[in-house]
Amino acid sequence: MKERAYNFSAGPSMLPEEVIKDVADNLLNYHECGESVMEMSHRSAEFKEILADAEATLRDIMNIPDNYKVLFVQGGGTLQFAMVPLNLAVNTGKIDFIVTGNWAKKAYKEAVKMGYDTKVVASSEEDTFTYIPEVKKEDFRPDADYVHICYNNTIYGTHYPYIPDTGDIPLVADMSSCILSEEIDVTKFGIIWAGVQKNVAPSGVAVVIIREDLLGKAAADIPTYLDYKIHADNDSAYNTPNTFSIYVAGEVFKYLKRNGGLAAMNKKNVAKATKLYDYIDGSGYYKAPVRKEDRSLMNVVFVIGDKDVEKKFVAEAKAAGLHNLGGHRSIGGMRASIYNAMPEEGIDKLIEFMEKFKEENAK
Amino acid sequence: MKERAYNFSAGPSMLPEEVIKDVADNLLNYHECGESVMEMSHRSAEFKEILADAEATLRDIMNIPDNYKVLFVQGGGTLQFAMVPLNLAVNTGKIDFIVTGNWAKKAYKEAVKMGYDTKVVASSEEDTFTYIPEVKKEDFRPDADYVHICYNNTIYGTHYPYIPDTGDIPLVADMSSCILSEEIDVTKFGIIWAGVQKNVAPSGVAVVIIREDLLGKAAADIPTYLDYKIHADNDSAYNTPNTFSIYVAGEVFKYLKRNGGLAAMNKKNVAKATKLYDYIDGSGYYKAPVRKEDRSLMNVVFVIGDKDVEKKFVAEAKAAGLHNLGGHRSIGGMRASIYNAMPEEGIDKLIEFMEKFKEENAK
Repeated sequence: MKERAYNFSAGPSMLPEEVIKDVADNLLNYHECGESVMEMSHRSAEFKEILADAEATLRDIMNIPDNYKVLFVQGGGTLQFAMVPLNLAVNTGKIDFIVTGNWAKKAYKEAVKMGYDTKVVASSEEDTFTYIPEVKKEDFRPDADYVHICYNNTIYGTHYPYIPDTGDIPLVADMSSCILSEEIDVTKFGIIWAGVQKNVAPSGVAVVIIREDLLGKAAADIPTYLDYKIHADNDSAYNTPNTFSIYVAGEVFKYLKRNGGLAAMNKKNVAKATKLYDYIDGSGYYKAPVRKEDRSLMNVVFVIGDKDVEKKFVAEAKAAGLHNLGGHRSIGGMRASIYNAMPEEGIDKLIEFMEKFKEENAK
Repeated sequence: MKERAYNFSAGPSMLPEEVIKDVADNLLNYHECGESVMEMSHRSAEFKEILADAEATLRDIMNIPDNYKVLFVQGGGTLQFAMVPLNLAVNTGKIDFIVTGNWAKKAYKEAVKMGYDTKVVASSEEDTFTYIPEVKKEDFRPDADYVHICYNNTIYGTHYPYIPDTGDIPLVADMSSCILSEEIDVTKFGIIWAGVQKNVAPSGVAVVIIREDLLGKAAADIPTYLDYKIHADNDSAYNTPNTFSIYVAGEVFKYLKRNGGLAAMNKKNVAKATKLYDYIDGSGYYKAPVRKEDRSLMNVVFVIGDKDVEKKFVAEAKAAGLHNLGGHRSIGGMRASIYNAMPEEGIDKLIEFMEKFKEENAK
């Protein structure tokens, strides 16, 4: 296809077209410095500026306080599942989890595998993760080293309608699928981390925003790469970071800034998601299983209720230039991931397709 | 500068210009599939083909036997320094090292930090790492779980003139700065790993070539991401890999294949390095401190012997479009990293510059 598709992938997923075009224009000779960013020494003045600029712009658009460090770490969420306990579960070794989907559960299972004293404080698994449980401060173990949540659940399409009050216990949030989609009060969290591959940049980096007092407590014998302090003390360049992804992330941060920042982006996201949920709810054919107040702005999950028809939906949608509408391999159905870079036109095209499909397939 | 520079960076470093151009041309809409590779789901048919193709081409050009797995892992050499012992030092916990430079030493120090029973079997540190020690089979502890070497030492510009005979003990080689520059008998090694950022692709991936019988022996409580078997069992996509770097790596593998493979590339590398070393040795001004038989084809280290003049050399070279000729921050002097993608014309320009600089600065 000569045209670009509307890519509803859960991640990696769409990036702003103007950013991709600018990256392509500069790929052979970045701003006439003689090198591609792909070829730049991470110790060069040129790349140091790219990295510092990316961090500064992120701090600006997310309003990150000075007592938080911003790190760009490789290994994705899977490595964060191990790094967080190694760095934070160092006093009692107790970790409390709210299990709201596969990724929250993976974080929990990793802590179990590594031998920590874990507790599932609440779970919505018995109801196929279609809502976010309400958890109060008293529910957490007072001597827990931290509480882990997954703030937006990519697979099930839920999003916390509130920030759990954990008192003095550091709250750690996986925000992989909602970072930069809304304004967030960073001070409510001990760590916010997010794989960049959904809403920010090409895969291979997790952004870690960590309160400074949580650094430097890891045991001496853990792998060097897994100690946040090593990354913090070396401005994310203790070893060669994923330079290209950091560069594209910085370009996306700047794109967001010049388009009104996260408040403006959130307004657009609300408009896009509302349009799609409203259509689904009123369609009499598609169903969105998630409780209304817990619905994600980023991942819109819906079903028809017949597996064969759903397969047909996904295939015909792809042929129509609407890519990756299949639900996660673990649950099936459909999922439209509509991150920042999905234009409203994509929602309109999807609804148009859904209406046509309904007319052709509803009995 | 409108022209591309000759970039002598130790890494990240130059990539073949035709590969960069092709990547740029396909960046917005990869082969008209409607998506950028940067936006592709790692579970999509399109990306799975890119990944499988990259692995198959690498197997072809490196002649990798079927009983070796090829993995693309994030975290660079620093994470490999921890992953190798966690996966291999599981019987006696004894690890033998040959220390031939900073990176070999870092591997050793990481194993010490993690509490393993380490032994430095040989080191050339007392002679500023200007040669590769000769080590015999009898020098290794017979019950060592593995032996670690750094096959090409980026900082000091040395390369093993032989493959150490370790008998039945698995030999693990860090080949970050020489992979794909020469033909290698993979069967001599238990693991070959290499960060891709020097000779292959943009940073953020280590290629790990591991003999199958070494998989599956790690302790149950290690972080999931650090277990090679997890990566092997999931074709390097247990979690989202660094998709873009893997894609570019695959393009470079194909570039090498259509240009005669590693034998042809090695011939070019020998010609380039010989020309530069011959000039240095005959210059009466520059000196290459490394013992001749141990000289690297990839990293050519040389000095003038006066720090101020060397600084001037590096600055004037940069102004002349010859980038990153400074030696590693730990030793100073000069270093020309001349990886596969450095054209012979770059060597000619460098020698021309060196001769002019000598005429202007020799007393």
